[in-house]
Amino acid sequence: MNAARIFGPLLGDAEVAEILGDEARARAMVSVEIALAKVEGRLGVIDAAAAAAIEASLAGFAPDLGDLTRGTAVAGVPVPALVAQLRWRVGGDAAAFVHWGATSQDILDTALVLQLREALALLGQRLDDANAALARLAEEHGATPIIGRTRFQQAVPTSFGLKAAGWLAPLLRHRQRLDELRPRLLVVQLGGAAGNLAAIGERGLDVMTGLAAELASWLALLTGSLGKLGQDVLLLAQSEVGEVHEAEGGASSTMPQKSNPIRAEALVTLARRNATLLGGMHEAMLHAQERDGASWQLEWLTLPDMVTGAAAALANAGALLRGLVIDADRMRANLAASRGLLLAEAASFALAAHLPRAAAQELVKSACRDAPAAGRDLIDLLAERTTAPVDWLRLRRQAELPACALTLIDRVLAQQPRRP
Amino acid sequence: MNAARIFGPLLGDAEVAEILGDEARARAMVSVEIALAKVEGRLGVIDAAAAAAIEASLAGFAPDLGDLTRGTAVAGVPVPALVAQLRWRVGGDAAAFVHWGATSQDILDTALVLQLREALALLGQRLDDANAALARLAEEHGATPIIGRTRFQQAVPTSFGLKAAGWLAPLLRHRQRLDELRPRLLVVQLGGAAGNLAAIGERGLDVMTGLAAELASWLALLTGSLGKLGQDVLLLAQSEVGEVHEAEGGASSTMPQKSNPIRAEALVTLARRNATLLGGMHEAMLHAQERDGASWQLEWLTLPDMVTGAAAALANAGALLRGLVIDADRMRANLAASRGLLLAEAASFALAAHLPRAAAQELVKSACRDAPAAGRDLIDLLAERTTAPVDWLRLRRQAELPACALTLIDRVLAQQPRRP
Amino acid sequence: MNAARIFGPLLGDAEVAEILGDEARARAMVSVEIALAKVEGRLGVIDAAAAAAIEASLAGFAPDLGDLTRGTAVAGVPVPALVAQLRWRVGGDAAAFVHWGATSQDILDTALVLQLREALALLGQRLDDANAALARLAEEHGATPIIGRTRFQQAVPTSFGLKAAGWLAPLLRHRQRLDELRPRLLVVQLGGAAGNLAAIGERGLDVMTGLAAELASWLALLTGSLGKLGQDVLLLAQSEVGEVHEAEGGASSTMPQKSNPIRAEALVTLARRNATLLGGMHEAMLHAQERDGASWQLEWLTLPDMVTGAAAALANAGALLRGLVIDADRMRANLAASRGLLLAEAASFALAAHLPRAAAQELVKSACRDAPAAGRDLIDLLAERTTAPVDWLRLRRQAELPACALTLIDRVLAQQPRRP
Amino acid sequence: MNAARIFGPLLGDAEVAEILGDEARARAMVSVEIALAKVEGRLGVIDAAAAAAIEASLAGFAPDLGDLTRGTAVAGVPVPALVAQLRWRVGGDAAAFVHWGATSQDILDTALVLQLREALALLGQRLDDANAALARLAEEHGATPIIGRTRFQQAVPTSFGLKAAGWLAPLLRHRQRLDELRPRLLVVQLGGAAGNLAAIGERGLDVMTGLAAELASWLALLTGSLGKLGQDVLLLAQSEVGEVHEAEGGASSTMPQKSNPIRAEALVTLARRNATLLGGMHEAMLHAQERDGASWQLEWLTLPDMVTGAAAALANAGALLRGLVIDADRMRANLAASRGLLLAEAASFALAAHLPRAAAQELVKSACRDAPAAGRDLIDLLAERTTAPVDWLRLRRQAELPACALTLIDRVLAQQPRRP
Repeated sequence: MNAARIFGPLLGDAEVAEILGDEARARAMVSVEIALAKVEGRLGVIDAAAAAAIEASLAGFAPDLGDLTRGTAVAGVPVPALVAQLRWRVGGDAAAFVHWGATSQDILDTALVLQLREALALLGQRLDDANAALARLAEEHGATPIIGRTRFQQAVPTSFGLKAAGWLAPLLRHRQRLDELRPRLLVVQLGGAAGNLAAIGERGLDVMTGLAAELASWLALLTGSLGKLGQDVLLLAQSEVGEVHEAEGGASSTMPQKSNPIRAEALVTLARRNATLLGGMHEAMLHAQERDGASWQLEWLTLPDMVTGAAAALANAGALLRGLVIDADRMRANLAASRGLLLAEAASFALAAHLPRAAAQELVKSACRDAPAAGRDLIDLLAERTTAPVDWLRLRRQAELPACALTLIDRVLAQQPRRP
Repeated sequence: MNAARIFGPLLGDAEVAEILGDEARARAMVSVEIALAKVEGRLGVIDAAAAAAIEASLAGFAPDLGDLTRGTAVAGVPVPALVAQLRWRVGGDAAAFVHWGATSQDILDTALVLQLREALALLGQRLDDANAALARLAEEHGATPIIGRTRFQQAVPTSFGLKAAGWLAPLLRHRQRLDELRPRLLVVQLGGAAGNLAAIGERGLDVMTGLAAELASWLALLTGSLGKLGQDVLLLAQSEVGEVHEAEGGASSTMPQKSNPIRAEALVTLARRNATLLGGMHEAMLHAQERDGASWQLEWLTLPDMVTGAAAALANAGALLRGLVIDADRMRANLAASRGLLLAEAASFALAAHLPRAAAQELVKSACRDAPAAGRDLIDLLAERTTAPVDWLRLRRQAELPACALTLIDRVLAQQPRRP
Repeated sequence: MNAARIFGPLLGDAEVAEILGDEARARAMVSVEIALAKVEGRLGVIDAAAAAAIEASLAGFAPDLGDLTRGTAVAGVPVPALVAQLRWRVGGDAAAFVHWGATSQDILDTALVLQLREALALLGQRLDDANAALARLAEEHGATPIIGRTRFQQAVPTSFGLKAAGWLAPLLRHRQRLDELRPRLLVVQLGGAAGNLAAIGERGLDVMTGLAAELASWLALLTGSLGKLGQDVLLLAQSEVGEVHEAEGGASSTMPQKSNPIRAEALVTLARRNATLLGGMHEAMLHAQERDGASWQLEWLTLPDMVTGAAAALANAGALLRGLVIDADRMRANLAASRGLLLAEAASFALAAHLPRAAAQELVKSACRDAPAAGRDLIDLLAERTTAPVDWLRLRRQAELPACALTLIDRVLAQQPRRP
Repeated sequence: MNAARIFGPLLGDAEVAEILGDEARARAMVSVEIALAKVEGRLGVIDAAAAAAIEASLAGFAPDLGDLTRGTAVAGVPVPALVAQLRWRVGGDAAAFVHWGATSQDILDTALVLQLREALALLGQRLDDANAALARLAEEHGATPIIGRTRFQQAVPTSFGLKAAGWLAPLLRHRQRLDELRPRLLVVQLGGAAGNLAAIGERGLDVMTGLAAELASWLALLTGSLGKLGQDVLLLAQSEVGEVHEAEGGASSTMPQKSNPIRAEALVTLARRNATLLGGMHEAMLHAQERDGASWQLEWLTLPDMVTGAAAALANAGALLRGLVIDADRMRANLAASRGLLLAEAASFALAAHLPRAAAQELVKSACRDAPAAGRDLIDLLAERTTAPVDWLRLRRQAELPACALTLIDRVLAQQPRRP
């Protein structure tokens, strides 16, 4: 609800603000009232001439927002004030047929669906762009070795392309899920098949109640996956790691040497933001009886924020990926600086082909202890300490990159939808 | 994590406790280690004889749980302790090939998937039962009139069957979604297509990371929809409303006249519980790099509680629906006691066919004010105050039940999957 | 972040929007930069003349917000753009001494503290007003009998004044807690005692990190207690209960007979809203190292929304309490309609003075079963069925109101702070 | 609710499990019933002989837990089953006076308060230990230089002792707040001052309703502050940073070189866990009317988990701090490896005493660009490029450690409570 435009470029989204803003909402409500009149005119529920007059008078009408706001203060919703404006605008006999048989919720929720339709189209487009950028990274860097890190410790080598594929995989799933969600969420049949007006209310309830929470879950899953990307970039961009950085990192107001990872940070922020807000949408599922004002209002407050968060996250991800500087040399240097310790597991396996496993492990373990102290490379030390005919050179090369990296990357890339 | 068995019958679930408990987890981990050896034996990664020995020795082996617990205190995970037990059990040369090439996470996550497979089968079954019970209610009570209540106020008449259909509709959607989720969640190919061992870890990560949050979302949507059912039953069962009650309501320790709606309460509790826990699963999506112990542990703590919550909610819903006493007479009496005020909207529409809409509305509005004060029925009062040829009797009958109720109920029932 | 002004009158707050808005934030940042220069001038860190020039040039300066917004897009924070504006405004040699030794966070967080100081003063005032209104209700209705309801069932009689005291008690505690929180939260000593500039940053970190979450907890406790009030009013205002209603309830767009409890609904909405948002503030406690952009941004997004929610809740509570119509006759009628069943417990105690307890309970239990079926009053039935010399009249009168109600109310009222 | 004992050593707590477990709860409920009878006997509400008989029979009685569990399935709470056991145990005439005038909630909530009293004593003790350990770190390492990192980038030097003081400061505040909370939370006067039995229920409601959420807030603030400590240790212990590590880090099941920071991870996990659970406690604040089963149950499920989380976090923090290996050499080496870039800000200030600020900044900025490329130290480069009489040696020494570090540490240490 608070309008901190100063932080808008990072944490808000101008396009979504327009799509979900008050002006757009008012326009959408007018569209719904027009559509309602047309359907009712066609079905003979209201006079055809009245329907035509309503359509003609209200096309392009922009309601007075101040008046709607004052109306909310009185009625709890802006619809009575809106209907009064529309009737005054239509005038004559037709005025009475504006909003015929509809409830406030019909209008508000159907208008929101129209707005969400536009917003989700935008999200889909941005998600495609982000996915395409990640796919490019996965392809280009399939064979770029990098240290894999587990539990904040250097573990085994992997490839940067495989990391990118790991970021991509859930996003492809979210893309597919969006295609499944959209038709269910966005088809609102005013008046229903039988033309029974009561059906409007029921449909509206049906559409928004359960589905709002489903949409919210999707939004949080999307920002969660983007947040993981951001988190990883933050860690890779640390001064001590330096394997990637944002081309247009934020300047510090006092420290000339610093370049802050502002896009990656925003991804983390927005992921936690949506993870938090999601709880509110689920609480709202416990709405009482046929309609529950408190649950409904909680959705009004929460869902637009979550859509905004998702849009902003996608915008930040796009900017981040466009400007991500990948320092393959530093990745290799960090690998080298680990003095072969990352090959401990692979060496253990290789030695076990020639020694009893326990002996192989003990040999590796003691070398792991001694190598750093002696400033020696683990593999050099092992080669000195055993006569087992391990092909150390091949091990070193092989282990630099998991043999399966390219296969795994291809598997993820194959899940990309083909676009015409 | 806390084991309040005293509240177990309502808020816990004995069957899930068994499926997800420590014993089952230990058994599942053993199964995974056996499956791993078999795959590796088949692919020639380890000696076939060793694989056979592992399978033979470990079949049915029940690890010492106390030892696993002590192992967790040392290593942060129980797997190193488990592997030691398994190697001791297998003995001989084959012992070294237990756990060959696998990580702790491979074993823990794959074991969890095996446990979840069983748990989701149970949930699916219970959900089918609950849906069948709701479908029966929807069919039987399609024409049972009841007051529809919006914003905690009596609004317009509806049918109890339509309310039941409203509870059913999202649950049918969740049932379908479960069928979509299960194969994605539960297919774990040990060793991968190419038999590359590295693939195990990658698959594990892929499976659990994103999908755990997706599963959690589904669990919370399920309990949310059941929570709405519980909330509605609580409100319908209020002393002042009395339209339904639980056949086996909880007794009060001091008030002989009370029968507490304990199943409905539990549905609300568990819905809010899972709505709360869901946030934790989304926070865990921001796991760092190749593996993040803190995010992983957060999932361990949270997901089993959410599965338990869903199972308990379904059990409570089943018991609630089996024993729900529906007082159709009280529903009709409450409708009658509203003295026709609920027909205000319908009367307004009917009069508008004969009078200018504004005049029709004013007439109804003033009658709405006067009827309660005079202890009169709204329709009687209107019939006296206007000569407009409205068929009041038909209005009264018609409005008692929305004409579309049966159509809408049928639409929901048509979405039920056919079972052989 | 989304600016749904249409719903502002209920769920937003114009006064807080002004206090926490961009214009106010920009003004506060300028004030902080001026204060910084003055302190540094006094301590000799910067030239006294430069400090004087800065103060003179910047007094009342309103920064260009569009430029700050663009600056955020580049640097992640608006401070570098602000400093540029201020230096341009100051000009000359003094310009270089603007922002001397400060970081972006010093300025942003200290400015936020200045804004919060104003916002908390507003909240304190509104809380006093709400508490005064509740105290009046508690005093006036100490002896107004009403049914106490536990687990959504009629239980034992209580008094409406005691209910009001129950709403008041936690709010008095929150009022006292605010007085404890404010000095800790709002004392920011620019430059510290020793005049060491480094101290600014440390203090800022110290102030905002932990305390932001503490403040958020308080805000959520406040809205939670107000939400309970709203929840209770919603339930008491149900058509079937009708014991209170909002004088200015929201009109329905179609149902002339309805008056919607819009203030009570908003209290519930805002309580659940803040309960949800609170999680985000706690997540932000895990900020990394000396400063963590993502946690910091999460606080920027969340805390203002929570302050707004608290302010809006207090405004709604004020309006609700000012216009709450209390229908003591309906309360008595509802008690009467319970046909004495609420006295079951009291009757059981009274009979136990003359009969074995088991016999007394059995007698009451069977009468509880028979009374409703026979349309009889429980006490009448009991009086017929036993010769035990219970003073039934006294029981009826006594039990109508718990003897301790007034004592308990007085105990709560005594906790009110004395105001001069 | 789930009992994953396998992970208990890290994420659970055996002592709290005992204090809050079913056996302890049953014992506490018996104690409450005894205390109730004693108060009532003293006040003459029940016969003094009956009270004495109750006390004598029930002292040390351990109820049958299976029976209580079955009782919960029937009544929604275990109290009716408990009372039946107690009456059977007491026997004779006195049996009827067991539980006289009390409700289920009186007994359950008062018993919980008794359990919490013990649990909070444990938490207080552990918190004192953790604070003492942090105070020692702060004292010992006040002058140990370390890189300060903001937004995941190296920023300016600080001292490790100052970091420790930063971890300590909020924990000292939580310690003080615990002392404020405990008396309010834990004083339960059975029967109240006036000896009016009705007062019991009211007090129970008063105590648990608001205060449970206040306690939960405190628990989450505590674990949040400990989570920040864990987060920082995780980052400092990264392979590439290596400034601290856990002496007893967890072993990897396959990677001999790894030592996992399992205590630090657990701190992060438990912080996010409690941050999540806290939302549920705030949702429960909206309990309906005089008592709301669903809110009450949500508290039963949530609060014990949060206490457990806090206890486990304190235990992990204790173990972490006892075994934290601090590598001051590595801290110095990392500072040195930054090639003076961290002194950019200080150099800029020092130069500004001799050059126009813009010129000073430009000089530093260009040196910051050139130094890393040339493999040169920033200060060396600056000394070459300007004749400004800056005392570079002093700058280097001074800037290594913020002059205010010791002052700030002392300020935090001064807030420690004196213990006798």
